Amino acid sequence: MDTSLRDRIRAGLRQHDLEEVRDRVLQWDVSEQVELLERLSPSERAVVYRLLPRETAFQAFGRLDTPLQGELLTALRSEEVHGLVAELDPDDRVKLLDELPATVARTLLVDLSPEEQDATGLVMGYPAGSVGRRMSPEFVALDRRMTVDQARAAVLERIDDAETVYALPVLDEQKRLCGIVGLRRLLATDGSALVGEILREAVTVEAHAPAEEAARRCADEKLLALPVVDGTDRLVGILTFDDALDVLEEAESEDVARSGGAEPLRRPYLSTPVRSIVRSRVVWLLVLAVGATLTVRVLEVFEATLEQMVVLSVFIPLLIGTGGNTGNQAATTVTRAVALGDVRVRDVGRVALREVRVGALLGAALGTVGLLGVGLLYGWAVGAVIGLTLLSVCVLAATVGGVMPLLARALGVDPAVFSNPFITTFVDASGLVVYFLIATAVLGL
Amino acid sequence: MDTSLRDRIRAGLRQHDLEEVRDRVLQWDVSEQVELLERLSPSERAVVYRLLPRETAFQAFGRLDTPLQGELLTALRSEEVHGLVAELDPDDRVKLLDELPATVARTLLVDLSPEEQDATGLVMGYPAGSVGRRMSPEFVALDRRMTVDQARAAVLERIDDAETVYALPVLDEQKRLCGIVGLRRLLATDGSALVGEILREAVTVEAHAPAEEAARRCADEKLLALPVVDGTDRLVGILTFDDALDVLEEAESEDVARSGGAEPLRRPYLSTPVRSIVRSRVVWLLVLAVGATLTVRVLEVFEATLEQMVVLSVFIPLLIGTGGNTGNQAATTVTRAVALGDVRVRDVGRVALREVRVGALLGAALGTVGLLGVGLLYGWAVGAVIGLTLLSVCVLAATVGGVMPLLARALGVDPAVFSNPFITTFVDASGLVVYFLIATAVLGL
Repeated sequence: MDTSLRDRIRAGLRQHDLEEVRDRVLQWDVSEQVELLERLSPSERAVVYRLLPRETAFQAFGRLDTPLQGELLTALRSEEVHGLVAELDPDDRVKLLDELPATVARTLLVDLSPEEQDATGLVMGYPAGSVGRRMSPEFVALDRRMTVDQARAAVLERIDDAETVYALPVLDEQKRLCGIVGLRRLLATDGSALVGEILREAVTVEAHAPAEEAARRCADEKLLALPVVDGTDRLVGILTFDDALDVLEEAESEDVARSGGAEPLRRPYLSTPVRSIVRSRVVWLLVLAVGATLTVRVLEVFEATLEQMVVLSVFIPLLIGTGGNTGNQAATTVTRAVALGDVRVRDVGRVALREVRVGALLGAALGTVGLLGVGLLYGWAVGAVIGLTLLSVCVLAATVGGVMPLLARALGVDPAVFSNPFITTFVDASGLVVYFLIATAVLGL
Repeated sequence: MDTSLRDRIRAGLRQHDLEEVRDRVLQWDVSEQVELLERLSPSERAVVYRLLPRETAFQAFGRLDTPLQGELLTALRSEEVHGLVAELDPDDRVKLLDELPATVARTLLVDLSPEEQDATGLVMGYPAGSVGRRMSPEFVALDRRMTVDQARAAVLERIDDAETVYALPVLDEQKRLCGIVGLRRLLATDGSALVGEILREAVTVEAHAPAEEAARRCADEKLLALPVVDGTDRLVGILTFDDALDVLEEAESEDVARSGGAEPLRRPYLSTPVRSIVRSRVVWLLVLAVGATLTVRVLEVFEATLEQMVVLSVFIPLLIGTGGNTGNQAATTVTRAVALGDVRVRDVGRVALREVRVGALLGAALGTVGLLGVGLLYGWAVGAVIGLTLLSVCVLAATVGGVMPLLARALGVDPAVFSNPFITTFVDASGLVVYFLIATAVLGL
């Protein structure tokens, strides 16, 4: 979106030129309208939102990130809000209500029809972070004893209000999930056949399972909908692929932010106030800085050595920087592998062994370059110190970097939290110790 | 998967106990079988693959990462290979053929039926990295003049071989794409209505557009299928959501790896040979190490200052580490925002301004802590130097970190490439310069 275009909209709003603003905005398609809404201030957003025709406004609302939805609701009038909330699907509604203060959420819930309250209450009964909290309870389930004709009729009956009709869970006589059939298969099969003959085995997930795990299962198996069951295999809801994608996107943002050493922003970057950005980073930064005082201590211990050979301090950033990069690489690779399910906690031995070898090869390459480069300019003794330190630091950093995410997963902590920044700090301190031990040994200090 | 279980399989293979291995493997579901295949050596993989019944084998094959598919093909006998390749959908086939050496790919193509050759050739006509290369040419298109009854009949005709029947592109009289309609809508509407009355506007993408861009559009708009058109708006293929998810996963892995300072692995971590891992990291590491020699030069320039006050070297890792973390945070946030489409290149001014403010606030917080902490132990002059340096470094690092990804995008380079590691190196060197300038000024050296 053109900045000047947005500025013109804002100017129009300031001058209360609402007719013109509306004409302009209505020429755009929904994604452009959403982009505009994301970049306005909360009050401007509410004004523009009201200018949109009801159907478009609802579409745009659905496409906003949930925190912005919450903000928008706070700025709208009460009856507009209730109308909006009532129209949402139960799973989207719960997502929104989770964003709002509890008192506001309660008032909104109370105004819903009994059926909608039930549907919402069902979903809200599950803990935050579980797939039960993100699923839709509005599904079409077939009975295995039905004929295909009966099944098609059942689908047509619910065709307007079910979350999806393309993936149809199948229940047995005790109402337990026994399979799934695609609408495509249903249409392609002769009408007198039984549903039980054409169903296939369903991938399912338990309602209390973590939402991220369920979403990744859905994405890996490329499912249109993943049936969610309770402890007795009874169907309680479905996680459709669009909700799975949302869950994954949030999880990715979280991982990416944390491995970069900050808390994730829960809204688009440019609509996040500066103080929120600061808040998402300052705690991390302080914790890491405190951790880095470890390096200060190490250097205090070796201060005498440094006084003897000040030239040693000249290589400190290079050495610990290389250690940091190496550890970073290993941690990033393994964290990603864990997220994709390619590596499990029990693989820690294999990973450590692999990273030791990788670190050794990398360290050998870098150490040789370091030995030659430094040796030619500073003498072979110093060159040897740098070369050996690079080798040791690479082995150390790669191993620590590769193992940390698995250790984190074993402790039940987010691997991305343990990742890059923490590892760098740890590797910095130990790298310095190794450096000075090698220097003392080789140079006889 | 239990390591001991896999080892038992491998033992069984070594002892040529194929009956037992097959019985065991057939008890598992497809994802477990795929996991096993991922963790075997190439020759073991081929043996186990052959033990599977044809339908299961084909399913498992489809679920392997493409490099492993390629490896597997190389180990199978020629007629097995040709059968497999012929059965794949055109888009999966092209993905696989792209992995194989050109000569092998050509022989495989030649053996396909003329229709399959055409479908494959169509897709291969598009450049690698474009959505045309990843789309499926097997779609069902409706004509806007059809009645709903005629449309349903058209769907039933193609119900077995079309890539999807749930999202149906609609063409006008000149065979140009004019909209799209969901199968759900088609079934819910009265049979005598015209398709043209119930279609909705379609999001489309041009065949030469980057695959990642198209995939993200597909995911953002939660589309089951995204129609792909040529320059004259004629429909050439569709990108279904499962292929979009694959594209996004590869793109994410690439971004994540590069911001961690390495090339992406194109296969699961544990099936990647050590030398491949080393190769994916060594170039990066060397480049970064060479970049870090900049810090060596800076420190050489200020070596005399360091000799005067050796205590200054004690804080070097802390200061540049904090700068690195701050820059890292900013770069990670902005790179993610760029990937999600929340920030564009033209927003660089807003981003820079925002990060200057964030950096100033963070730096003020850290600088105060530094001033107090260091001042109490080393005297207020040194404390002031550390405090001021932390403030300056945070502002510098945050701004550089926030702007680099946009600069990269503007230059047409991968933002994740420019990101964290490069920024850290740049910020290290400039941070040191700032440090010594402040120290010289405050301490009168």
